[in-house]
Amino acid sequence: MKLKKFARKKVTWLSDDLNSLFLSTRIRIARNVEGFLFPNRLTSPQQLKLRGKIFQDLKKIDLLKKSLLLKMEELDTTDRRLLLERHLASSELVFSEKISGLLISQNEIINIMINEEDHLRIQIFGKGLELFETLLLSQRVENEISQKIKFAYDDEFGYLTACPTNVGTGLRISFLTHLAELVLTNHIGDVMESLSRIGLVMRGFYGEATKPLGDFFQISNQITLGVNPEEIIEKLLAVSRQLNDACTKQREELLKKSRIEIEDRVFRSFAILKESRKISFAELMQRISDIRLGLRCGFEIPVTGEKLNEIFFLSQPAHIEARAGKKLSALQRDVLRSAFIKECLKK
Amino acid sequence: MKLKKFARKKVTWLSDDLNSLFLSTRIRIARNVEGFLFPNRLTSPQQLKLRGKIFQDLKKIDLLKKSLLLKMEELDTTDRRLLLERHLASSELVFSEKISGLLISQNEIINIMINEEDHLRIQIFGKGLELFETLLLSQRVENEISQKIKFAYDDEFGYLTACPTNVGTGLRISFLTHLAELVLTNHIGDVMESLSRIGLVMRGFYGEATKPLGDFFQISNQITLGVNPEEIIEKLLAVSRQLNDACTKQREELLKKSRIEIEDRVFRSFAILKESRKISFAELMQRISDIRLGLRCGFEIPVTGEKLNEIFFLSQPAHIEARAGKKLSALQRDVLRSAFIKECLKK
Repeated sequence: MKLKKFARKKVTWLSDDLNSLFLSTRIRIARNVEGFLFPNRLTSPQQLKLRGKIFQDLKKIDLLKKSLLLKMEELDTTDRRLLLERHLASSELVFSEKISGLLISQNEIINIMINEEDHLRIQIFGKGLELFETLLLSQRVENEISQKIKFAYDDEFGYLTACPTNVGTGLRISFLTHLAELVLTNHIGDVMESLSRIGLVMRGFYGEATKPLGDFFQISNQITLGVNPEEIIEKLLAVSRQLNDACTKQREELLKKSRIEIEDRVFRSFAILKESRKISFAELMQRISDIRLGLRCGFEIPVTGEKLNEIFFLSQPAHIEARAGKKLSALQRDVLRSAFIKECLKK
Repeated sequence: MKLKKFARKKVTWLSDDLNSLFLSTRIRIARNVEGFLFPNRLTSPQQLKLRGKIFQDLKKIDLLKKSLLLKMEELDTTDRRLLLERHLASSELVFSEKISGLLISQNEIINIMINEEDHLRIQIFGKGLELFETLLLSQRVENEISQKIKFAYDDEFGYLTACPTNVGTGLRISFLTHLAELVLTNHIGDVMESLSRIGLVMRGFYGEATKPLGDFFQISNQITLGVNPEEIIEKLLAVSRQLNDACTKQREELLKKSRIEIEDRVFRSFAILKESRKISFAELMQRISDIRLGLRCGFEIPVTGEKLNEIFFLSQPAHIEARAGKKLSALQRDVLRSAFIKECLKK
């Protein structure tokens, strides 16, 4: 286990503002190195050579100076899962057979996957809805890298990527949002449908092909060709305003029609958070979702956004296993999770 | 509503000892007045006349001097349900069309139903497993009444009763017990079967034809003919010892095999008891059952037996309605129940 220290660190890119539906922003840029086949087509020695070259080039960049450079083959399963849970790597990267690597900046705001689907996947995090700020940083990082590495580029298509869905800008912009009101009132299906009609896509907490967990959703652009970043951001911001209005409306109706049911649900969840002796991660996420909803409803619950974020993020299975320093059964994890929550709430 | 004051009174006959499985004892004696047909066969004017005579006779008995005498037709539905919930009357009595009545002694330890299935049903309560003490009191009461009222008696059959199952002694002796360990480990069916083989019967919390609630059971003798009270008591005491051994054994095994699951269950239930905003009576009983089990397991839960008994008894639906002074919806009752529990736990 090399990455144990991550398991105790709060993430810096989650908004602690409980009045907001929006927790974080992520921008991902897919790039490939000119003169190399896409990672899938490279032999292992070629992948190794390319990773070495990219590592060398990245090391020269001031902005990335104190970053951690990881060779995936040196990491055990817990380390790999930890990276997934911290949203620092995709499951394609951590469970791949390819010779791949990962750069993580000191504050975890910048991370770069090497030999995932593309040669480089640059990811930048931002708090809440800091879409423009995050875009600026991502452009700066991309620009600095492009000084050292020549990217595969086509005048007609733009940046070339392994999968045609990423061709063009290679850009995916997303935000993480908490939509308990829409889940509770069965509106989430409609939202998902309307989003897809305008070229946006809704995913679960851990991204692609993951189930929704605790009413958290990632919303991002589907199309990367022929659109500019500002257009995507404007569209995402417009959606965020609509989601906000929809949640406010549903929340007000819930409070009008079933205030006591909501209060009961919320305060039971908080009580269980404090008093359980074992709790699964899925249940925890649901309890936290209830509490966030309760706080938005104006109920007096003695807990801060910072505390809730710390609890849920550091309660993820590999985080618990990494802190314990050994493999654990599901029951053992559930017990340690409860103990950790209790400790967090006491502090 | 005539009986409102009952809705705030704790019952005196429940044991507060949380280490014991046994909450209370009840002895019921069925008697009929010589020279009168059984209640079902009487016309209404005859029922009225008989009730008047019995009331007059009972009033002369010193032991029953300060008792309350109730004419059932003067009670509204909430009053009647309140009597049921306090175990002071049977549903046959409170929902009957007959002209019937009820005597309740000041401390509620003695109550006498008039024109239920039989002319008189004398019931005496005792705490915990006070079987002999309760028998003595019941015999004293029966004896005092027999000085004023001549009971229907047959030299061959003994005391005559409307239903042949009560003929002979007319005596039913029961105790109320909490068997969470046996329910949790799926042994309760076996227990019920073995009891029936030795002439005992197991019923739910509210007696005949009621479902088990919160793992509380009433166990009593089935046969009333040709057995003497001491034999019944010896049999019940033997069963109580077996139940105690069985629960201890199952509890120890549960703690050995699944301590954390039991702790989790118990502390969640206590948390919900404190923090719910609405709770049904059935759920409350289950939560209290969990907490009683937890206390028997030695877990440190800051609540006394007295408090738990007060909470569950005074949380019954009609008790809540009587305190509110009006008809309530199920939701309104559930909300007031939660508020009442919170208040009790604070005191």
